[in-house]
Amino acid sequence: MKLILLSGGSGKRLWPLSNDARSKQFLRILDRPDGRKESMVERVWRQLGDMGLEDSAYIATGKAQEEMIRSHVGMGVPLIIEPERRDTFPAIALAAVYLYSIVGTSLEEVVTILPVDPYVENSFFSRIKVLERVIRESGSDIALIGVKPTYPSEKYGYIVPEKTGEPDAAYFQVNRFTEKPREEEAAELIKQSALWNCGVFAFKLGYLINLLIDRRIPIHYDELTKQYGSLTKNSFDYEVVERAGNISVLPYEGYWKDLGTWNTLTEEMSVPLTGNGIVTDDSVNTHVINELGIPITVLGLSNAVIAASPDGILVADKVVSPRIKEVMKDMDQRPMYEERRWGHYLVLDYMTFSDGREVMTKRVSLEAGKNFSYHFHHKRSEVWTVISGEGQMVQDGEIRTLKAGDVVHIPIQSRHSLLAITDMEIIEVMRGHELVEEDRVRLGMEWGAILEFCLS
Amino acid sequence: MKLILLSGGSGKRLWPLSNDARSKQFLRILDRPDGRKESMVERVWRQLGDMGLEDSAYIATGKAQEEMIRSHVGMGVPLIIEPERRDTFPAIALAAVYLYSIVGTSLEEVVTILPVDPYVENSFFSRIKVLERVIRESGSDIALIGVKPTYPSEKYGYIVPEKTGEPDAAYFQVNRFTEKPREEEAAELIKQSALWNCGVFAFKLGYLINLLIDRRIPIHYDELTKQYGSLTKNSFDYEVVERAGNISVLPYEGYWKDLGTWNTLTEEMSVPLTGNGIVTDDSVNTHVINELGIPITVLGLSNAVIAASPDGILVADKVVSPRIKEVMKDMDQRPMYEERRWGHYLVLDYMTFSDGREVMTKRVSLEAGKNFSYHFHHKRSEVWTVISGEGQMVQDGEIRTLKAGDVVHIPIQSRHSLLAITDMEIIEVMRGHELVEEDRVRLGMEWGAILEFCLS
Repeated sequence: MKLILLSGGSGKRLWPLSNDARSKQFLRILDRPDGRKESMVERVWRQLGDMGLEDSAYIATGKAQEEMIRSHVGMGVPLIIEPERRDTFPAIALAAVYLYSIVGTSLEEVVTILPVDPYVENSFFSRIKVLERVIRESGSDIALIGVKPTYPSEKYGYIVPEKTGEPDAAYFQVNRFTEKPREEEAAELIKQSALWNCGVFAFKLGYLINLLIDRRIPIHYDELTKQYGSLTKNSFDYEVVERAGNISVLPYEGYWKDLGTWNTLTEEMSVPLTGNGIVTDDSVNTHVINELGIPITVLGLSNAVIAASPDGILVADKVVSPRIKEVMKDMDQRPMYEERRWGHYLVLDYMTFSDGREVMTKRVSLEAGKNFSYHFHHKRSEVWTVISGEGQMVQDGEIRTLKAGDVVHIPIQSRHSLLAITDMEIIEVMRGHELVEEDRVRLGMEWGAILEFCLS
Repeated sequence: MKLILLSGGSGKRLWPLSNDARSKQFLRILDRPDGRKESMVERVWRQLGDMGLEDSAYIATGKAQEEMIRSHVGMGVPLIIEPERRDTFPAIALAAVYLYSIVGTSLEEVVTILPVDPYVENSFFSRIKVLERVIRESGSDIALIGVKPTYPSEKYGYIVPEKTGEPDAAYFQVNRFTEKPREEEAAELIKQSALWNCGVFAFKLGYLINLLIDRRIPIHYDELTKQYGSLTKNSFDYEVVERAGNISVLPYEGYWKDLGTWNTLTEEMSVPLTGNGIVTDDSVNTHVINELGIPITVLGLSNAVIAASPDGILVADKVVSPRIKEVMKDMDQRPMYEERRWGHYLVLDYMTFSDGREVMTKRVSLEAGKNFSYHFHHKRSEVWTVISGEGQMVQDGEIRTLKAGDVVHIPIQSRHSLLAITDMEIIEVMRGHELVEEDRVRLGMEWGAILEFCLS
């Protein structure tokens, strides 16, 4: 079996901790068994490891998340990178074509798709193993995992099984799908043994490849990446699952939760305060997640969620907190904190002047052994003040060592790179017009090659 | 008449906006008639001007507030600076001795003391003028203004008048004082025509000078400043007013309010949001005061106050918000924002390292025409990156001009100063051990003298 984890999304449902650069699956706010914190991606990767599934897994994602995923689950994880973000149908098609034409996976192999952020027990992954057997035994085109509902939720999609005479069967034929029913309807569906759709489905690779051929979609990776922009922007559910003739569903009775909103997420947080601050005892069922350096004091306020990051501060009643996405939808904000392949940075200060000049001050953390690409900027100059650590700097072909206290001027168009020998912290003052990430012309990435290039 | 405004306090009742460097009277959060914002100090100074009392006024305060007061009410305001902070009795004694031995004020002159932060209508200051007449007509040692209570508050001190046959008299003899009674007792006191003590009292200068002589306290300014540390640390109320034999009280029926806590202060704020953010319509009676650059979004939370500054973030139910002082009492925090004679600065970032090194990054705003003192540091080096404006820099006797983009290295013990020609913004990275304000050896303050000193 091959496992494809879909790492999508971004959005603002967990604003201000999630932003365009950091989707919810990268927030390190879940409790690990050892008491430390982990992200949803780290959690699922740890669980895959526990269940011996790690070696079968690929992560399908966009270019924007590549560095984040590598920083959470390691450089070794195999990624299938979409040329652009579309929807789950194109993403899964690309993954299938990658397995078929690049990995050489057999058309008889079972492929299982799952979101990268299910909040489940390990037993969920045992069911995923069983799903492979269901495909083989049932002869179904598609087999899903259905979560046994615990209440008549209006938020989820329901999988309604065929009425059979075998209530104790290991798996069922699917009769139909129903999206977000009203509560009474949901209660009625549950009586009919309907299950929640948790977005996990399996199929033989050959099934999807044939489907792509039928639709005249290229089944070779290079060709598909070229035509990727013309693929229909639709979900795999609508495009494939709901049109399939022969579908099975395998029930799962354990813990499963959608941690997509502040009120559901905070239910899984064991302590009221994460980060610097004080929550008074009379603040009942209130959670604070503080990623800022300054303290947050909560005084006599119950049933609230307070989340603070360099992007902003949310103070919400828990019950209405899911409305944050709607409230923030017109807020177009530059991310103030980003994780990168080489470390991370934090925007400390940003000013604009009436003549159009912009100045941004960042604290940049470069991890030992990692380096920036060799690059230059068209529209900005930089001043670096090294505040800790040691590194090797290349600038316009010259090599020097850098240590705490050193100051570096990087004029417009000056080519530069830096390798950290020990962990480095740098205060960077950027001055120019349009201080955007895109103003970066990369000349090289790998340090050995950069040195060779510069010295030649 | 001479007016002495007492500018004391600091404290944490309005944390995080008030801190050890910025008392509540300097918070620019009150609505001005022209729609802009003003501080309590600016408001009272504006009202004194409206009432023609500005020229009679002095502000008694500590060294720490000197620059703030000048930045709020101008360089011309006469200050009486305490050598150290004690309490209102020593502060008023010093002011009286200053008037007597430095200004040469007559012993027959009436001196009126008032807090720097009364939130009142202009008519309050008309009553202050009447207070002078009360002293002269009644022959009382002390005359106070008593605010007509609007409800049986448990928070205030009450001035209980003598039972006289003249309920319509312009002023009354005082029978006794009662501090913070319970509600029923307060209601009973109000029936007896008791008034709230708002901390305004008048006396002839000679009364207090004689009292000081009796207590063997020096009545010459230079001598008193030397012995200031040995004066009893007690309030003028306890030490003088409550022991006086013959006291009058003048009623005031207008608006008066103690804006010392978040719940009372926010009642005077006309809009729910000050600063960057969103407060949803279903957040009823909630106020946000945001001094941070990042947005605050409040969603469905009523009767709350949210206050954010570079020092921290308060999220409180309004009713219990006065408890903040108690909650923060053990929090010993460096102020992250300070106003100074020459402008202000904001701490952007602060890091400590395991070897004891500290690094602090500030954005420093120097106003056109103002300059830093000529000074040096024993324990830190600095790197300045000028991000806007122009100035003249003196460093170790050399003069140069500075403009946006220039970078200045200031090693330990390097003498330096800067005059802003236009408004300047500078990113300053300080590195060293013990990054405290006290590590600053001042060699000169006035720019002309600094230049002369350097060029000689």
